[in-house]
Amino acid sequence: MKNKSLVSITDFSKDEIMRIVELAAEFEANPNQKLLDGKVVASLFFEPSTRTRLSFETAITRLGGGIVGFSDSSSSSTTKGETLKDTTIMVSNYSDLIVMRHPLEGAARYASEQASVPIINAGDGANQHPTQTLLDLYSIYKTQGTLDNLNIFLVGDLKYGRTVHSLLMAMSHFNTTFNFIAPDSLKMPDEYKLFLDSKGIKYYEHSEFTDIISAADILYMTRVQRERFSDPIEYEKVKNVYVLRNSMLNNTKDNLRILHPLPRVNEIHTDVDDNPKAYYFQQAENGVYARMAIIASILGLK
Amino acid sequence: MKNKSLVSITDFSKDEIMRIVELAAEFEANPNQKLLDGKVVASLFFEPSTRTRLSFETAITRLGGGIVGFSDSSSSSTTKGETLKDTTIMVSNYSDLIVMRHPLEGAARYASEQASVPIINAGDGANQHPTQTLLDLYSIYKTQGTLDNLNIFLVGDLKYGRTVHSLLMAMSHFNTTFNFIAPDSLKMPDEYKLFLDSKGIKYYEHSEFTDIISAADILYMTRVQRERFSDPIEYEKVKNVYVLRNSMLNNTKDNLRILHPLPRVNEIHTDVDDNPKAYYFQQAENGVYARMAIIASILGLK
Amino acid sequence: MKNKSLVSITDFSKDEIMRIVELAAEFEANPNQKLLDGKVVASLFFEPSTRTRLSFETAITRLGGGIVGFSDSSSSSTTKGETLKDTTIMVSNYSDLIVMRHPLEGAARYASEQASVPIINAGDGANQHPTQTLLDLYSIYKTQGTLDNLNIFLVGDLKYGRTVHSLLMAMSHFNTTFNFIAPDSLKMPDEYKLFLDSKGIKYYEHSEFTDIISAADILYMTRVQRERFSDPIEYEKVKNVYVLRNSMLNNTKDNLRILHPLPRVNEIHTDVDDNPKAYYFQQAENGVYARMAIIASILGLK
Repeated sequence: MKNKSLVSITDFSKDEIMRIVELAAEFEANPNQKLLDGKVVASLFFEPSTRTRLSFETAITRLGGGIVGFSDSSSSSTTKGETLKDTTIMVSNYSDLIVMRHPLEGAARYASEQASVPIINAGDGANQHPTQTLLDLYSIYKTQGTLDNLNIFLVGDLKYGRTVHSLLMAMSHFNTTFNFIAPDSLKMPDEYKLFLDSKGIKYYEHSEFTDIISAADILYMTRVQRERFSDPIEYEKVKNVYVLRNSMLNNTKDNLRILHPLPRVNEIHTDVDDNPKAYYFQQAENGVYARMAIIASILGLK
Repeated sequence: MKNKSLVSITDFSKDEIMRIVELAAEFEANPNQKLLDGKVVASLFFEPSTRTRLSFETAITRLGGGIVGFSDSSSSSTTKGETLKDTTIMVSNYSDLIVMRHPLEGAARYASEQASVPIINAGDGANQHPTQTLLDLYSIYKTQGTLDNLNIFLVGDLKYGRTVHSLLMAMSHFNTTFNFIAPDSLKMPDEYKLFLDSKGIKYYEHSEFTDIISAADILYMTRVQRERFSDPIEYEKVKNVYVLRNSMLNNTKDNLRILHPLPRVNEIHTDVDDNPKAYYFQQAENGVYARMAIIASILGLK
Repeated sequence: MKNKSLVSITDFSKDEIMRIVELAAEFEANPNQKLLDGKVVASLFFEPSTRTRLSFETAITRLGGGIVGFSDSSSSSTTKGETLKDTTIMVSNYSDLIVMRHPLEGAARYASEQASVPIINAGDGANQHPTQTLLDLYSIYKTQGTLDNLNIFLVGDLKYGRTVHSLLMAMSHFNTTFNFIAPDSLKMPDEYKLFLDSKGIKYYEHSEFTDIISAADILYMTRVQRERFSDPIEYEKVKNVYVLRNSMLNNTKDNLRILHPLPRVNEIHTDVDDNPKAYYFQQAENGVYARMAIIASILGLK
């Protein structure tokens, strides 16, 4: 993995994914390893994303690395008309690694072709967010003891949510059974269903959010993201459709864990928060360990 | 004090206040103590406050800690509709301590009830700003050699200024005599006068800013804060009423020191700056040592 | 140089310039020197400048120093009406060194007169940007092996560009021959030509961008900066006048190197980027080493 950029979850093989998951467990057991001592990581957020940025910057700081960068594009030199190419080359001459969030799809791939240091994609528009996927996998592994042969329910906005798309691609290595629960206007796109077909992976589609979740090992809830809708009326119509409440969890499996990439708006009622099956806040914490693992692997420090 | 949040100055007993003051003196004598090595402090400023943020971040840096966070809410995930509860839980899963500034009164208390790590309130609206009070106390102690039996004059906006309210509460432990100098529209609220009455503490009210200050040990000037007024005309009427000029200091006591929480606008004329009784810039510096003491105490590192 | 602010390139003698250049080479050979361990540098950017800020913050981080500050004035207390004097005094009470970028000419000089710690000017309006000049000198020295007796072409906006003005002043120590290539509306101002006359330094003016560059050792391209024009039509007229293309480099000297302070807009075509004579991205990297050298010198750490 050394010196390889992480742009899409498909850049990593099954073995590489397992290596990250195991390494994340190592960092969780022993988080203060100054492997980045003397190194500088550029944290370039061309759009704000507090959670992802803080998670990365915590990971870098716990590894002993220095951070330079910006948290939104208003303070970047793109306001002076600079191209992404020039910004990337410049910053790769300053730093040992670049973490990049960008509103445009494909930005991370393009940057990785210009930079002289590895790029970690921290989200490029609706396209990819591979470190989210790796922390999801680590969370599944920690709570289920394995990634193999699980029954995973994906709920909510399955059309626009890059998180569920990437998770689907990654879990395709592990003989997963998928259940998709979404309103008609937000169904899983055909391209992902064809992909699963081609790999012989089973999936089932539902439009009602009912007690079918009693079969789930993982219930992966997603936010209906206001910022992905051009029409606010369309957003208002679907935003309250699939809300998880504590009472819906009565007949679910003991090993069920509820994940959510956060931030949630109202798709998980707060009465779920104290249920031991709620795992979304620990999942966020796992992001720090997963990102430590990713950074250490890419820089060849582990 | 270990693992206890600091939300209001009333969270600390007289002994705890004295412990912070003494510890601040230790840090001033020896500021480079890497007690926070390997720790991460989240610095969450939901509204900008350069002075307070820089003071905290300097304190954390001098203690060897790492910092993650944001300097205004535009780059926080609250813009995606996330609740303060969720943001707090998430960040407390990343960090060892949270420093929080928020425009809403009560935000820090609420956050402290959600978080799994201690919260330090760096100001919540018009409500509380306890670390300002502790640095004020350290400044008074350093310049007067004691906190006991002093004559403290509070001048300016005594109605809206949280700084003077908290200082009044804290000094009530130390047999202070208070003098309040304010225009009628900005007088000290009754609730604080009742509080002093209940403790048997003497106070005197004045509406003229005259040579009555000759009795003062501490002259605490405050800014008439434009952002607290809904009516700009009302602000214009009072903003120039109580301006301290160097000529007014002729008959004051040798041990008098002039404090101000800063930033000042024009309520202390710049001709005071070179008078040895002017202490507001050193007071700001004391803030770094006071905050080092607070952080170290709360994390149980001293 | 110890404890001396760097406001203008004219603050440094020829010997001091050479000392910085040599020290930059030392830091490039051995960049991880924790000379700033336990020190705090305030990075105060009253206007955004990503490149300069990231370069400074990388330099400080590689030296092991801590950073506090802000990246634009919206999160500074100037929005509460605080004067530059008060902000400077406050911050100099927190930190060991201040790096300051400010939109107003003269701001850095004024601040250096208030502060109790040294100030490094990171650009004050159209006036001065001395660390850019020192990294330019280091780049010239590295690529030419000397600063003496070179033929330097300055191209583009020679009227408003502070970069070329400061470079001209600095190179006047080294028996340079200058060639100025600019449209009539953007010619080198008379004051700089009179300065060169007074030092007996040769210069030639051209209004066409032709094969006269075959004599150049250094071709210093500059951006026509949109933000310096009050009239957008005037900007549109001149912005495309002097564009360097790869085909124009055929008859140039082997030792020619092309510099640009970056960001470029379109004044260097991207087909130049792969030409070995293109040096602007390495020049940006040199900025980190030059700034390490400047900081270490001013703090007396080397």
